[in-house]
Amino acid sequence: MAKDSSLEQIGSNQSFGGRQLRYRHPSTTLNCDMTFSIYLPPQADKGPVPVLYWLSGLTCTDENFVTKAGAQQHAAAHGIAIVCPDTSPRGEDVPDDAEGAYDFGLGAGFYVNATESPWANHYKMYDYIVDELPALINDQFPINGSKMSISGHSMGGHGALTIALKNPERYSSVSAFSPICAPIQCPWGQKALGRYIGGDATENNGQWALYDTVELVKTSSKSTRDSLLVLIDQGEADNFLTEQLNTQLLIDTAAVAAFPMRIRFQPEYDHSYFFIASFIAEHLSFHAENLR
Amino acid sequence: MAKDSSLEQIGSNQSFGGRQLRYRHPSTTLNCDMTFSIYLPPQADKGPVPVLYWLSGLTCTDENFVTKAGAQQHAAAHGIAIVCPDTSPRGEDVPDDAEGAYDFGLGAGFYVNATESPWANHYKMYDYIVDELPALINDQFPINGSKMSISGHSMGGHGALTIALKNPERYSSVSAFSPICAPIQCPWGQKALGRYIGGDATENNGQWALYDTVELVKTSSKSTRDSLLVLIDQGEADNFLTEQLNTQLLIDTAAVAAFPMRIRFQPEYDHSYFFIASFIAEHLSFHAENLR
Repeated sequence: MAKDSSLEQIGSNQSFGGRQLRYRHPSTTLNCDMTFSIYLPPQADKGPVPVLYWLSGLTCTDENFVTKAGAQQHAAAHGIAIVCPDTSPRGEDVPDDAEGAYDFGLGAGFYVNATESPWANHYKMYDYIVDELPALINDQFPINGSKMSISGHSMGGHGALTIALKNPERYSSVSAFSPICAPIQCPWGQKALGRYIGGDATENNGQWALYDTVELVKTSSKSTRDSLLVLIDQGEADNFLTEQLNTQLLIDTAAVAAFPMRIRFQPEYDHSYFFIASFIAEHLSFHAENLR
Repeated sequence: MAKDSSLEQIGSNQSFGGRQLRYRHPSTTLNCDMTFSIYLPPQADKGPVPVLYWLSGLTCTDENFVTKAGAQQHAAAHGIAIVCPDTSPRGEDVPDDAEGAYDFGLGAGFYVNATESPWANHYKMYDYIVDELPALINDQFPINGSKMSISGHSMGGHGALTIALKNPERYSSVSAFSPICAPIQCPWGQKALGRYIGGDATENNGQWALYDTVELVKTSSKSTRDSLLVLIDQGEADNFLTEQLNTQLLIDTAAVAAFPMRIRFQPEYDHSYFFIASFIAEHLSFHAENLR
């Protein structure tokens, strides 16, 4: 399916009449080899299809969503491709947290462009997701690059929301499960931004605010609020809800900013892929409607 | 949900309005602690529900099907519980293959009752699946024990078919993905039966034939052929098809025996959980119809 010989296919499985594929490629943005997965629905055999980008959470690779979310059946029904990138640069040359923490470094790129040493040479996940990967995908696969939407979980929900809010002309719609809504105000976000970007939320010319959904909602334009469609699901039994996610703060901020977002609390659901699997059908339908 | 204090709950996640649960319990049949997973659909809150047993393949635990098959949505729609046992006895006292082979010992119990040393003390997976586990499940959970069906993959497909053929009064229906249809005639089966049971297919009073679907079809009674409903899916791109699975031999044997089985070849599908996920909806519908 892929045309460029710098793309190495490392996996291929028939799935719901389409193909679940996996590739390795050299990334010039991240200065390392990267792996991604792409599901091509049966409709891709006949011509270009719309695409959903899925951004995963802490500790994940490109494979968690592919094996656990059960999204392929809905992607096949709607004729949508799904691209799953990895969650950080990888490889022996890529620096990791000194203690191998799960919430910083490898598996925890936070979808930002690092500016601090030693991270800045590799940790440019924002540019990779927004520019390099879509350019590669649109060039190499039967994808209609003008029909893109984005979604994600936890750290990836933060990534999807901040990327869509900063690039509303590129994405028809954005959704998230259990997103980190205000990284500036939670331990995961403060650790990551403090080390990748440096300084704190009030220093550094407000750089942190460019990676914070609550702050981006406050400064959103009327045209963004009018055009970007947003769906968020949050489990009420999520262990991280109180300390890390700040869902209610996003609800309140969106209300003040008159940004219409559909944010739903789901009783009894936790932070796991069992939660994602239970509602992924509704997220795919939401994106499919807006990608038509 | 479970009543007996010897059952230790080790996992619980909300899933499609029901609960995906995981337990540890001491098994008297296997002489070790065992882990199993059980999905209880929302209907189980109101009264006993039918149950499907799922037997996994080589190297699997109780968790592979739970995280990868996407079966919960269909179990919730039909109001069926799904019980997933482990694939062998476990623990420090349980002997394993000396070289840690993937196809014998831990993770490879083959759903037989071992008679040879050192396996016979623990490797009694047949009795565990047929007797001990259902007795525990029926006693401890809101399950209607008179409404049981069974399914499985690869080694577990072999387990499901042989167990149903030997106990047709207990199971309304049986289905399998990529089953080992004739263990007597393939390397996986010959290795397992030779060591768990001893001898060869012609020795040992025909003990091997009691664990071989093709042989059990040959000796099946008319009432079994009339009452037991069978559905099998086999991927045409399955790497193990030629050497290990013997699907065509089962088709031919069933035809000669006048045993009506629905055995389907699925073009392009392989041996993976992507195959199972693609057709699990049809298997759940098949069992649900027969469990009514």
